Amino acid sequence: MEFGLPRGVRDFLPSEMIRREYVINVIKNIFECYGFEPLDTPAFENFEILAAKCGPEVKEQIYYFKDKSGRELGLRFDLTVPLARVIAMNPNFIKPFKRYCISKVWRYEEPQKGRWREFYQADIDIVGSESMLADAECVACVIDVFKKLGFDDFYVRINNRKLLDALLIDLKVPKEKVVDVFRVVDKTEKVGIDGVRNELMKMGLKEKSVNEIISIIKINGDIGVLKKIEAKNELIKEAMDELVQFTRFMEMFGMKDYIKIDLSLTRGLDYYTSIVFEVTYKKYNKSIAGGGRYNNLIKIYRGQDIPATGISIGVERVIEIMEEEKMFNLPKTTTQIFVAPVSNDVMDKALKIAQILRKTGKKVETELMNRNLKQQLDYCNKKGIEKVLIVGKKDLENGEVTLRNLKDGKETKVKIEKICEIL
Amino acid sequence: MEFGLPRGVRDFLPSEMIRREYVINVIKNIFECYGFEPLDTPAFENFEILAAKCGPEVKEQIYYFKDKSGRELGLRFDLTVPLARVIAMNPNFIKPFKRYCISKVWRYEEPQKGRWREFYQADIDIVGSESMLADAECVACVIDVFKKLGFDDFYVRINNRKLLDALLIDLKVPKEKVVDVFRVVDKTEKVGIDGVRNELMKMGLKEKSVNEIISIIKINGDIGVLKKIEAKNELIKEAMDELVQFTRFMEMFGMKDYIKIDLSLTRGLDYYTSIVFEVTYKKYNKSIAGGGRYNNLIKIYRGQDIPATGISIGVERVIEIMEEEKMFNLPKTTTQIFVAPVSNDVMDKALKIAQILRKTGKKVETELMNRNLKQQLDYCNKKGIEKVLIVGKKDLENGEVTLRNLKDGKETKVKIEKICEIL
Repeated sequence: MEFGLPRGVRDFLPSEMIRREYVINVIKNIFECYGFEPLDTPAFENFEILAAKCGPEVKEQIYYFKDKSGRELGLRFDLTVPLARVIAMNPNFIKPFKRYCISKVWRYEEPQKGRWREFYQADIDIVGSESMLADAECVACVIDVFKKLGFDDFYVRINNRKLLDALLIDLKVPKEKVVDVFRVVDKTEKVGIDGVRNELMKMGLKEKSVNEIISIIKINGDIGVLKKIEAKNELIKEAMDELVQFTRFMEMFGMKDYIKIDLSLTRGLDYYTSIVFEVTYKKYNKSIAGGGRYNNLIKIYRGQDIPATGISIGVERVIEIMEEEKMFNLPKTTTQIFVAPVSNDVMDKALKIAQILRKTGKKVETELMNRNLKQQLDYCNKKGIEKVLIVGKKDLENGEVTLRNLKDGKETKVKIEKICEIL
Repeated sequence: MEFGLPRGVRDFLPSEMIRREYVINVIKNIFECYGFEPLDTPAFENFEILAAKCGPEVKEQIYYFKDKSGRELGLRFDLTVPLARVIAMNPNFIKPFKRYCISKVWRYEEPQKGRWREFYQADIDIVGSESMLADAECVACVIDVFKKLGFDDFYVRINNRKLLDALLIDLKVPKEKVVDVFRVVDKTEKVGIDGVRNELMKMGLKEKSVNEIISIIKINGDIGVLKKIEAKNELIKEAMDELVQFTRFMEMFGMKDYIKIDLSLTRGLDYYTSIVFEVTYKKYNKSIAGGGRYNNLIKIYRGQDIPATGISIGVERVIEIMEEEKMFNLPKTTTQIFVAPVSNDVMDKALKIAQILRKTGKKVETELMNRNLKQQLDYCNKKGIEKVLIVGKKDLENGEVTLRNLKDGKETKVKIEKICEIL
C-alpha cells in the first residue's frame, strides 16, 4: 500500500508544532489586543462562492469536489471569501465587525520551497467602517505582531489602487487594460523597472504612456512624495487624501516610520478597491503580510456595498524566516517533568506524585514501558525533558524523591510534601 | 447566487468561538499535563489509506475527490488513521509516542441534532507501549478533562474485546459472525437487552448460545463481577488479567470509582483488539468519549505490529451538553476595554491610550465609525464590552479620562499615567 502523504502537504511533528503554536499564539494574542474576535468557517464552501471573484488563476487552484448529492464544493483558498459570505448571510451584524481567523487554506499549486498545497493564513478584517483608521489599525496590529515575534527589519509599502487607476485613466490607458497594467506593475519588485517597461510595451501601450507609467511607479518614499503628483481630477485628489489620512493615523499609532509610499504596489487580487499594503522583510526582500481595502467584495454575495478592509499574515513564510534566522528559542517538548519509578513496586507512589504535580498545572510524563532507570533517563535525554523526579524505595522511606536535572546532571533530594513548591 | 453554506456544516461566530476555544483550551492543557504532545496532519489523505480499515459504513461517509493529477484523495474522517499513517512513515519514532490532536474531521452523514458533517475531535493516543498503564493513563487524562470542564456526573464503561471474543468462540459462535455479534451487542444501551436478543436470534444463532450471550453481556459492575466468568482457557484468562491490571492502575490514579466493567460494551470500529472504554454522561445517558487499544491498525500501513491505545473526546457533544446545562460562564466578547473619544480632535490621545493598554496585554477596541459617545456606548452594550474609557477634552486638560462601567453605570475619573495600574 502507498502509505505516503499526498503531494504538497505535510505532517507537523511535535517539535514543529511547538514552534508553530508559539507563532500562532503570539499572533492570536496581538489580534485580540486590537479588539479582533475569532470567527471560524468550514473547510469547504459552495464552489460558486469560491469561484465568484477569485480570478482565473486562483480558480484553477481550487480543490474541487462533489458531495454524494452532487453539490459542487471546494476547499477554501483564502479566509476573505468565507468572511464575505458570512457577512452576506448575517445582514444584521453589529458594525464594525472585527474578526480574526488563523486557519488552514488549500491551493493546488506546484509545490516549491516555502509553497505548500495546505498552509496557514492569519487574517484580520474590519467590516463596516469606511474610515482610513480601520486600515491603519489593521496595519498597526500586524506591525505589533512582527515586533512581538522578534522581527525588527521590515517596512510596510502602501499604495492606493484608486490613485493608480485614476492616473492610468488620465493617461488614456483603455479601461479594459487597467487591470492588466496592475498585474504587470505588481511584478516591479520581482522583474525590476526595465522588466515592467518591456511587458507594458508588449501590451501595445504607447511609448509615451509607458514612460509616464514608469515615472509614476518609480515614486516612493514618505508621504511627501505625493507632491510629485498633480491633483488633476477629483479621483486623484480623493485617492491622495486617503493616503494622507492613513499616514496621519499611523502617526497617531506611533508607527509612521514603518510606512513607505510605493506607487508600484498593486497586489494581485482583483477585489481591492482603495488602499493596499504589503509588509516586506528587508533582509530577504520578501512579503510577509499583505492586504487592503475591498469595498465591493461583499456586494457580489449580497447586492449592497459594504466597506471592508483587512490584512493577511503569511504564517508559513514567517515560520520559515524565523527558522532560518534562528529566532526560535523554545523547548523541544511541552513536557516539563518526567517521574521515573526505579522499580515496579514504587509505581503506585510515582503515579500519585505525577497526579499531584498535574493538579498544579505541571506537564508531567511517567514511565509507561516498564524500563529501568537508565533507559528512562536515555528517553528523557532524547526527548529533551530536563527535569526527572526519580522515585526509589530508599528515598521514599525518608519521604523523599530525587530531582535530577539532565542539563547539568545535578541531583537534589526533595521532600514529597514540598514537591509543588520546588518545581 | 446561492450564498449559503453547504448542507451539514456551520460557521462559528465570535460568541460561539469563545465557548469553543475555552473547551479546546481546557482539553489541550490537561492533555499536555499528562505528557501528550501536539501533532497535526493534513485535512486530506490518500483515499486508499482512509479506506483501508474503516469498515464499509464509514467508507461511504468519506468526502472523496481527485486532485488535478488524478490522485484519489479523501478528507480525514477521524484522527486515528492519520496517526497510524504518521507512525508508519516514521519508523524510528521515539517510544512511547504520546500525541494529542484537537482538530476537524469530516463525514458525509445525514445531519441531525448534534451531528454535523464537519466536527471537532480531541484525541490522545499512546503508541509503542503494551502496558495497561498506557490505557489507564488515557482514561485518567480524559476523566481529568471532564472534571475540569465541570462535569460531575459521568462514568467510564470498560470491557475487553478479547474477552468477549474468547467467550463467543467458546460458545461455538462461527468466527465470521463474531464481528456481527459485536455490532449487535454494541447497541445494548440503545435497544435494550430484548432488542439485542431479537437481533441475535435473527442472525441464526442457536437459542442456547443467544441465552448465554445475553447472560454474559448482562454482566456489569465493579471488577468483582469477573468472578462470574469461568477462566476456561488462556485467552479468557489473559483478557480478564488485562481488566484487572487496568483497574489496578486506575486505583493508583485515584480514579477507580469512575470505572464500571460492562461486558455489553464493544465499540463499533473494527480495529480495536483488547480493552475498550466509553465515557457516559449519566443525565443524558450519552457517550462523550470513547476509545480502546488497537494493536493491529498500524500493521496495515507497515507490516509490523505496533501496540497502540487511545481515546477520543466528542467535542461537539461536550459543547452541546455544556450549553444545555448552562455550564458556560464566559463573556460574550474577548474585548475588555473600549476607548471612546468624545470628539474627533481627541482621537490622537484616544489611540495613544489604547496603545498603552495594549502593550500591557489588555484587549482593547477603539472607535472606528466616527460615532458620537451615545452611539459608542450603545455599541459596547450590544457587544457586551463592560469597561469604557471615555476620552474627553475637559478631562484631558486635567490629565484624566473617565472610566465607565456599563454593568452598573458607575463612573470614575482616572489619571492617565495610572491607567495601567487601575485596569
